[in-house]
Amino acid sequence: MTAKQSNGHTLAPIQASSLYFTPLPPTHVVPPGKESHGRYMLTIPWNRVSGWGQPKIGPRQDLTFDPLAGVLQYAVTCFEGMKCYKTDKGDLRLFRPKKNFDRLKRSAGRLGLPCEWDNDELLELFAKLMALEQPLVPSTDGSNLYIRPTLLETSEGFGIKEDAFAAEALLYVVTTLNLGLGLYPSSEGDKGIKLDACNEYIRAWPGGTGSYKLGANYGTVNISKKPGYAMSLWLHGKEDFISEAGAMNVFIIKEAPDGYLEFITMPLSNGIVLPGITRESIIELLQDHASDKQDFPLEGVPKKIRVVERDFSMPEIIKGLEDGTLKGMFGCGTGVVVVTVGEIQYQSQTYKIPSNPIIKVLRDTMTGIQRGKIDEGRSWSVQVPEWNPQGKEGEQEEHVTAA
Amino acid sequence: MTAKQSNGHTLAPIQASSLYFTPLPPTHVVPPGKESHGRYMLTIPWNRVSGWGQPKIGPRQDLTFDPLAGVLQYAVTCFEGMKCYKTDKGDLRLFRPKKNFDRLKRSAGRLGLPCEWDNDELLELFAKLMALEQPLVPSTDGSNLYIRPTLLETSEGFGIKEDAFAAEALLYVVTTLNLGLGLYPSSEGDKGIKLDACNEYIRAWPGGTGSYKLGANYGTVNISKKPGYAMSLWLHGKEDFISEAGAMNVFIIKEAPDGYLEFITMPLSNGIVLPGITRESIIELLQDHASDKQDFPLEGVPKKIRVVERDFSMPEIIKGLEDGTLKGMFGCGTGVVVVTVGEIQYQSQTYKIPSNPIIKVLRDTMTGIQRGKIDEGRSWSVQVPEWNPQGKEGEQEEHVTAA
Repeated sequence: MTAKQSNGHTLAPIQASSLYFTPLPPTHVVPPGKESHGRYMLTIPWNRVSGWGQPKIGPRQDLTFDPLAGVLQYAVTCFEGMKCYKTDKGDLRLFRPKKNFDRLKRSAGRLGLPCEWDNDELLELFAKLMALEQPLVPSTDGSNLYIRPTLLETSEGFGIKEDAFAAEALLYVVTTLNLGLGLYPSSEGDKGIKLDACNEYIRAWPGGTGSYKLGANYGTVNISKKPGYAMSLWLHGKEDFISEAGAMNVFIIKEAPDGYLEFITMPLSNGIVLPGITRESIIELLQDHASDKQDFPLEGVPKKIRVVERDFSMPEIIKGLEDGTLKGMFGCGTGVVVVTVGEIQYQSQTYKIPSNPIIKVLRDTMTGIQRGKIDEGRSWSVQVPEWNPQGKEGEQEEHVTAA
Repeated sequence: MTAKQSNGHTLAPIQASSLYFTPLPPTHVVPPGKESHGRYMLTIPWNRVSGWGQPKIGPRQDLTFDPLAGVLQYAVTCFEGMKCYKTDKGDLRLFRPKKNFDRLKRSAGRLGLPCEWDNDELLELFAKLMALEQPLVPSTDGSNLYIRPTLLETSEGFGIKEDAFAAEALLYVVTTLNLGLGLYPSSEGDKGIKLDACNEYIRAWPGGTGSYKLGANYGTVNISKKPGYAMSLWLHGKEDFISEAGAMNVFIIKEAPDGYLEFITMPLSNGIVLPGITRESIIELLQDHASDKQDFPLEGVPKKIRVVERDFSMPEIIKGLEDGTLKGMFGCGTGVVVVTVGEIQYQSQTYKIPSNPIIKVLRDTMTGIQRGKIDEGRSWSVQVPEWNPQGKEGEQEEHVTAA
């Protein structure tokens, strides 16, 4: 895939075959405080004149920026969160990685960053980075190699420019071990996490950036975090509608008047909710189960269920607790996978949410698919090929066009 | 001023007397593309354990960050925009610099960044940085040394932390020559700038960060910029209320039923408008003039005027054009100082805004105060003392406490 500039000049694509690999030096020592991080990083520079530069995998290191770089001044940065799991056989699996790549393109486009590349080429580079860290990844349940692709503006993002697009950018990928492992209680036999419903800080609003995975959506709401609560439950509108919790999508489970069990989650249409890949996967599994297209991979999900995408509010949750129709609540996302919400603090009141065994079924299903134990028949789990980088070391740069 | 941690440990303050100065090397060459920037930068590191580290002024250089630093991942960055002007006598002036420092504290607090320091100490360091660039600053009207203080998180801002506060941060200051000079037409005899009213991208909303000077407020709306327009006019609410234009505050001038000329600007109370220092200064000058407390520094502003802080919408502007009560519109801010709005594109219609000679009076007054030509009697213009850094070079580090 190649992109053309308006002047007809062809911009270089991301090309996995031009990878330049630098192994760890024999004297490599992990810097203090970085012990839990992957040892390598992938970097791919970009500029408006020549397009994507040569991909490089080498030892993880600091990045340097001009003091006026767009990322430092104007938060021109977006990212993804992905996890790589080790199966019992020792091979590594990614979960629907191209969904993340597509979302990164969408986020990048929202910021005026480069957003064209061939996902297959990028996946090949990711797989090589994963393969290098394979020996570090434990195969115990829940353990993972968390992957953080980041795309940001390195050029000066200063003053008002005649056009909004970055002149230079950098896509880089670093990894860390076991993000989310032990951070939240598992959903087995526990009471779930505590959330603090927050209408002082509003995470997202129509016309804003809530549906994009931008750095700006996260740092700006950090200070809402109250001690003793796992995260904030984000509210919006005078109705106190719920949008997300922390960095998770949220579902409630509710008994409908017709006896169906409804899995209700907020719609993507108002543009304030991140289109989560765990969210999308759970919706698809539940809908296919309900429509008899394909049974849910694990036992324990009744047939009379329905997925409903609509807004719901804190008052609706309170009413559901009072009349007994609220049957559970959970959050989902790459970090937590699926986690029970056990308690919400709202307007100085504490609301206990009933637990529901289906939440554990959802969690076990997702982790089972991610670790290659469950075949859901949709090829969601992608095996990372082994890679032996011998002989690639020191290969010449080929695809960097002079600016 | 010293701050104490909860454990009673004293955190080091910003202390100008501990400045470490590194002069430009004799071999100094300005890097390509950086010709318009100041040659020096001021850096002051901070960490939670010991507080502020030693301030350093040295040659402008790149900054290095861990790939997971809070500024790169979660946009934990805020800034200020200030200008330093050269008077006809050759001395440098800052305009109400402590107002900027206070606003930077407020922005930093919103992001969980350090927000305690003595403004006098910081001003002394700023003044030294300015003094070093004094020879570069032209004394022609409109020319300036633009100052960009930036405060950001350098520590890892990754995953969900138990508390929201940065572990390590960096305050740095770089400068550039003549930002805003020639970027917009002067208000003398011109038709003013063209704005594109935008309700596709919403800049700010109640409970968000619009009233703080965060990087996140700027990069996220870059792509709204349309060719041929100076900037976007930000709308909000179903009424299409106006909040700001580009990065400026906005006023309309309107004839009231009682014959008074009203200067109407949106209030700060809903938290979506930046509390601009130019905005505040213009309001004070106009109010003191109207109340006979102190005449407006230059001739041309009638006595029967009134400043009104309230929301106004695009439909009100259109109605004011139709009935002839709209008498002008301008933007103001550090970058533009004061600039006439001449035309607005809104819902595929073009609206010409009448020009008003008072806008030029406001502009000339502000630039006159800033360049020390007009004494407004409030000590808004602060003279930068000369500084001879001889003998300071290589001074020992004194105030950096080990982490």
